[in-house]
Amino acid sequence: MEIIGREHCLDDCAVFPFGKTNMVASTDMLHEKADFPAGMTDRQRGWMSVAVTLSDIAAMGAEPCFVMLAVGLDRGSRLKAILQGAKECCDSYGAALAGGDLDAHEELTMVSSGIGFTDHPVGRAGARPGDLLCVTGVQGRAQAALEGYHRYDPFLFEPLPLVREGILLAKAGVTSMMDNSDGLVISLYDMLEANPGCGYVVDSRLLPMVAEIPPDESRDFSLYGGGDFGLICTCPSWMELPGELDIHVIGSVIQDHEVLVDGKEADMKGYQHVWNE
Amino acid sequence: MEIIGREHCLDDCAVFPFGKTNMVASTDMLHEKADFPAGMTDRQRGWMSVAVTLSDIAAMGAEPCFVMLAVGLDRGSRLKAILQGAKECCDSYGAALAGGDLDAHEELTMVSSGIGFTDHPVGRAGARPGDLLCVTGVQGRAQAALEGYHRYDPFLFEPLPLVREGILLAKAGVTSMMDNSDGLVISLYDMLEANPGCGYVVDSRLLPMVAEIPPDESRDFSLYGGGDFGLICTCPSWMELPGELDIHVIGSVIQDHEVLVDGKEADMKGYQHVWNE
Repeated sequence: MEIIGREHCLDDCAVFPFGKTNMVASTDMLHEKADFPAGMTDRQRGWMSVAVTLSDIAAMGAEPCFVMLAVGLDRGSRLKAILQGAKECCDSYGAALAGGDLDAHEELTMVSSGIGFTDHPVGRAGARPGDLLCVTGVQGRAQAALEGYHRYDPFLFEPLPLVREGILLAKAGVTSMMDNSDGLVISLYDMLEANPGCGYVVDSRLLPMVAEIPPDESRDFSLYGGGDFGLICTCPSWMELPGELDIHVIGSVIQDHEVLVDGKEADMKGYQHVWNE
Repeated sequence: MEIIGREHCLDDCAVFPFGKTNMVASTDMLHEKADFPAGMTDRQRGWMSVAVTLSDIAAMGAEPCFVMLAVGLDRGSRLKAILQGAKECCDSYGAALAGGDLDAHEELTMVSSGIGFTDHPVGRAGARPGDLLCVTGVQGRAQAALEGYHRYDPFLFEPLPLVREGILLAKAGVTSMMDNSDGLVISLYDMLEANPGCGYVVDSRLLPMVAEIPPDESRDFSLYGGGDFGLICTCPSWMELPGELDIHVIGSVIQDHEVLVDGKEADMKGYQHVWNE
């Protein structure tokens, strides 16, 4: 089952050549219990359900065009706030909320599906030994919120997909990219799978971490925490990183097929789904 | 809530002008208990989850391009057969299965989202008094299967979206179109909502019905039964119906804003979702 699943998720989006440009498409399913942190409002759930798809589109370097939302509702009274949040997120990124589907369901379930376009599609594959490994912004803030540091709640509850950043990085010439919403290290393992000819080393001292909490926790959150909507990318060492972006070199691409953090093989930890076989 | 819902579902698809053509997009959510008839195999569930979206695209007169599938799985072992059925349906209609998302869920939940293109988009609105009202094929076979007439099971379990038919009807110049998967009369009420300036009359003697069952049941299934994947359309009386299609005139478009069957106001019955407010 994993093998079939993997074939279908080696990139954040499917890519279709389309005239002189490329259409990218992504779909994401979220469930109340498994995917929405406790304490969120329905407006925030609507926002997040769109944000996850916009983040996938951003990770391809694409400009979002529209998002559709299928909502399985346990109570009809929740719909208005959910759609309000979904529309706010679409509006914030210049995407249309193109309707969707409604259904009754025991557990609130939302699936957002989005379309974007890019002349420079960037996938998870494409990293080359010698490339730099970079991340955008501070890592681990959403996890800090999950662990009770409530001043970081906005990062967890109203994540901001990095659409402009993804487009700029793709244009600048990054060789591979993905979003890190499942966690940095687990995402590097995903990238490892898409890049059989190389591996990744991370120097944790270079990680932009949450500053105001104990350093051990902060390091842990930045490496293994989920819920951040940052971008991970690789680029040639000579490439100029867009100056207007909050982007950090945290390591490099190596020839060996492994993920090393501070010289040791990294634990494959992060946010993962578990099925009963 | 209904009002918000209705705003978002006045057509089977959202339509975006796209260069010289139009992109249409649709998303559909299906749950194991509410939407899949008992007795289906997982391969058939995969097939149906794609078929509903292809039918929405067909009802706009569009050619499907790709479908994405988000699957919330109760047991991972089901995935292979589900994806097999989804892929078979896509392959049968020349659409790509463009990956999707996987997730764990207590109840099997599937959301398919599809994109198509058409130079002649046809919506639910556009009917004009004096137009003919038409349907494709025999009505009520899926409902007959649901009611225990098992020789009709294939129509219920492996519905065939009328993609070629929708494209031909759009090119021929139909003024409005939708699919009838929720039932004929309930779909006419949906069309009524999209067409404030007219209404519909049906002469039930003209309905192509299931022949081998008692006439009373057959009439009921054809008017109110769900699960058929036929098309309902309106067209000018002078328009030539494509000769290669199994299409039937069953009534006409009138000035009064009502749905009449054999001269009486039709019951608003059919397949509907119920929410706890």
